[in-house]
Amino acid sequence: MEFAEYFPIWDKLAPGEQKKLSDSALYRRVKKGTLLHGGSEDCQGLLLVSSGQLRAYIVSEEGREITIYRLFERDLCLLSASCVMQNIQFEVTVEAEKDSELFVVPSGVYKALQDESAVVANYTGQVMASRFSEVMWLLEQIMWKSFDKRLAEFLLNETLLEETERLKITHEAIGNHLGTAREVVTRMLRYFQSENIVKLSRGIVEVMDAARLRELCGK
Amino acid sequence: MEFAEYFPIWDKLAPGEQKKLSDSALYRRVKKGTLLHGGSEDCQGLLLVSSGQLRAYIVSEEGREITIYRLFERDLCLLSASCVMQNIQFEVTVEAEKDSELFVVPSGVYKALQDESAVVANYTGQVMASRFSEVMWLLEQIMWKSFDKRLAEFLLNETLLEETERLKITHEAIGNHLGTAREVVTRMLRYFQSENIVKLSRGIVEVMDAARLRELCGK
Repeated sequence: MEFAEYFPIWDKLAPGEQKKLSDSALYRRVKKGTLLHGGSEDCQGLLLVSSGQLRAYIVSEEGREITIYRLFERDLCLLSASCVMQNIQFEVTVEAEKDSELFVVPSGVYKALQDESAVVANYTGQVMASRFSEVMWLLEQIMWKSFDKRLAEFLLNETLLEETERLKITHEAIGNHLGTAREVVTRMLRYFQSENIVKLSRGIVEVMDAARLRELCGK
Repeated sequence: MEFAEYFPIWDKLAPGEQKKLSDSALYRRVKKGTLLHGGSEDCQGLLLVSSGQLRAYIVSEEGREITIYRLFERDLCLLSASCVMQNIQFEVTVEAEKDSELFVVPSGVYKALQDESAVVANYTGQVMASRFSEVMWLLEQIMWKSFDKRLAEFLLNETLLEETERLKITHEAIGNHLGTAREVVTRMLRYFQSENIVKLSRGIVEVMDAARLRELCGK
């Protein structure tokens, strides 16, 4: 596992900067379900994914969740180092959604580089702009898209990520991704089942008619 | 109107950078209601507010609106120069919500500075982090706060911004801020009126009981 291979702007850094980063980056292998970051006081460092899948989400006071984005190979999670990003005033939780491998870049090391280097600072800005864009997309979905379309889109995306039509996922977990009560998910899934779009069994949602799902979400 | 007085990191710039910015910045005085930026293809420049109030909002395909943030004196609007910010993949519209004075910094000039200067790049990141935080706040409100609380918070905020309890605002305009249909706004305002919290007349919402509004939104 070479840090250099995964850090997107490696070639644009000076040798001294490269050394600081690779010397300080910690390699971690984590099991599915591992909590990697929780709350703004926890500022261990930036997470650079080398394999697997992470999920960033927010939690309401009542414990309701909504997924705000996911991170895949070569993605960098800035918000786990929110102390590095001045003016970030919200808290996200990050967990491994699959068994994953990642590098942790200590916050202090990254901050020192960013303060000195326009290249690093601009890269941080680009990553933040990507996450910001994902949240804007989510906001538009929530505001203007009906729940059947959001659920259809979610199920289609899951079949791609999991590479199977037979999804091992509970209604509650779907609700936590979409920020919706379990009952609402169950109701819509049963409607999908009555239309032969999905088939439900314990802990399983099997997509039977992906074409109809695509049609539903206008793809 | 001195640009230097309004640009937040002026003192941290080198004299050459200061000159580039102040030579290129255009001073504009605009009337309430002026459209300052619309869509991602329009990339005239960064807007630096010297007085007044701007509103940034998104618009759905059906023409529904929701305010994502407002800009006041000394605030910088990056998204009107989204071509400068790599990876910004959404479109906002910016309009003057009051008669306003502002500077327009041409996108190309700012981008050239940002590419060279860690100070400018980090400042851009801070501004983006602030806007990102505002959108996250909004997302949490929409997901987890009931409409009566959001409306109470909006009305209280308006009385502060307008410095009067007697707000000249239509139900439709409130709907456009909050991303809600006019009918929903009217229904809730009538309920507030029945509780003697507000008094409604043509084009006017008068706040009668600010304490109750504060109570409602938990302030």
